[in-house]
Amino acid sequence: MTYCVGMVLDKGLVLMSDTRTNSGVDNISVFRKMFSWSVPGERIITLMTAGNLATTQAVISRLEERTKQPSDRQNSLMELPTMFQVAAETGKLLREVIHETQDDNGRLGKGRFTASIILAGQIKGMEPRLFMIYPEGNFIEASFDTPFFQIGETKYGRPILIRGYDRDMSFEDAVKLLMVSFDSTLKANLSVGLPLDLMVIERDGFGAKHERRIESSDPYFNAISDSWSEALRSAFHSLPDYSFYQPDETT
Amino acid sequence: MTYCVGMVLDKGLVLMSDTRTNSGVDNISVFRKMFSWSVPGERIITLMTAGNLATTQAVISRLEERTKQPSDRQNSLMELPTMFQVAAETGKLLREVIHETQDDNGRLGKGRFTASIILAGQIKGMEPRLFMIYPEGNFIEASFDTPFFQIGETKYGRPILIRGYDRDMSFEDAVKLLMVSFDSTLKANLSVGLPLDLMVIERDGFGAKHERRIESSDPYFNAISDSWSEALRSAFHSLPDYSFYQPDETT
Repeated sequence: MTYCVGMVLDKGLVLMSDTRTNSGVDNISVFRKMFSWSVPGERIITLMTAGNLATTQAVISRLEERTKQPSDRQNSLMELPTMFQVAAETGKLLREVIHETQDDNGRLGKGRFTASIILAGQIKGMEPRLFMIYPEGNFIEASFDTPFFQIGETKYGRPILIRGYDRDMSFEDAVKLLMVSFDSTLKANLSVGLPLDLMVIERDGFGAKHERRIESSDPYFNAISDSWSEALRSAFHSLPDYSFYQPDETT
Repeated sequence: MTYCVGMVLDKGLVLMSDTRTNSGVDNISVFRKMFSWSVPGERIITLMTAGNLATTQAVISRLEERTKQPSDRQNSLMELPTMFQVAAETGKLLREVIHETQDDNGRLGKGRFTASIILAGQIKGMEPRLFMIYPEGNFIEASFDTPFFQIGETKYGRPILIRGYDRDMSFEDAVKLLMVSFDSTLKANLSVGLPLDLMVIERDGFGAKHERRIESSDPYFNAISDSWSEALRSAFHSLPDYSFYQPDETT
């Protein structure tokens, strides 16, 4: 499994991904699932991937035209004029890769090579944008009604995102929120694992404002993980107490 | 979908279930998923079901021998000497019902008629016990390492259960904890719905200590739902703040 979240804020975009891949619980590895390209001052584009690793690596390689000699490569991510076209091109490649691998009349097991992608970025002259790209190659865009996308193991970490998100929150608060969401997911699903990759893209910055790998020894992540249990327990005890005698029974 | 939780405490057992069944989002109904039988002073047995409704209703009907004339019926739940035997009998019926419906060489779609059951109760002279019964008819028992079972849509409501549970908590706190867990699930998955059924079984009480249906108008549930958002937000803000300048970068 995987867990990746991309979030739109008034101030820009914040993205976090885990790095665990597994083929059975007895075969786990660390692979980067966040990929970023930028033309400083003009554009920054970041992708996060979930699903079959061979599929997602093939999509990234094709985006960078790694089948060609380095001198002949044209990275379309660096050249396409709009984020919409970047999403369309990425979706097309994703669909092609899945189709090629799957094109066996179902013998290999339908759905085994599937993948999803979160695409975020900004190109000069346009707004920061966030897309979710489906295995079929089509995609949706985030809005302030649905200001974040999750892929992979989305459920454990969702309640806190729903309740903690504010479009005008600071980048620091957004990172904290993502860490809590990832911590809940890591605690519940062994197929999501540290280290985490973090990317903060400031509106009109056209570059990474803040980019880090969060290792298992990270003191801030560990402080969040430790204190969140305590904070949740306090929150729980601050709620009104249940009584076996309900108001309608005592009147 | 469905959401049911059964929990073992030092003081006894606490169970909660939702009541929504759906066949597509355009076809939802309210059906009870919690069923209870007792011989006052001697035993109390409660079942909660998730999965195909025809399957689970058939299991309940067979347990009560509703195929027979009322005068000929022998409810094995009232007579079996141990909770282990109740679990085994329930599992056997569950497996049989699924097998009969599914016995078509897969034409009807494998897995469509599957179901799971949480079984809780106590028989005089023995401890309160909690089982999870699988569609195959086998089952596991809760212990204080894994003191609660969930069936149905288990993920959204799990992080708070993991962090809030204490074996020596009061029944009132356990009910509060379940309400928070159900509220998170209801907010995230439309196929889990109010009203909820609640059952509290006190150790050596051999009857329902507290049994209620929680409707959407329930003032306590609504107070929990409203104040949990606020409490979570306070908990979140009580955590240490993230800084873009990490200790290792400033030294």
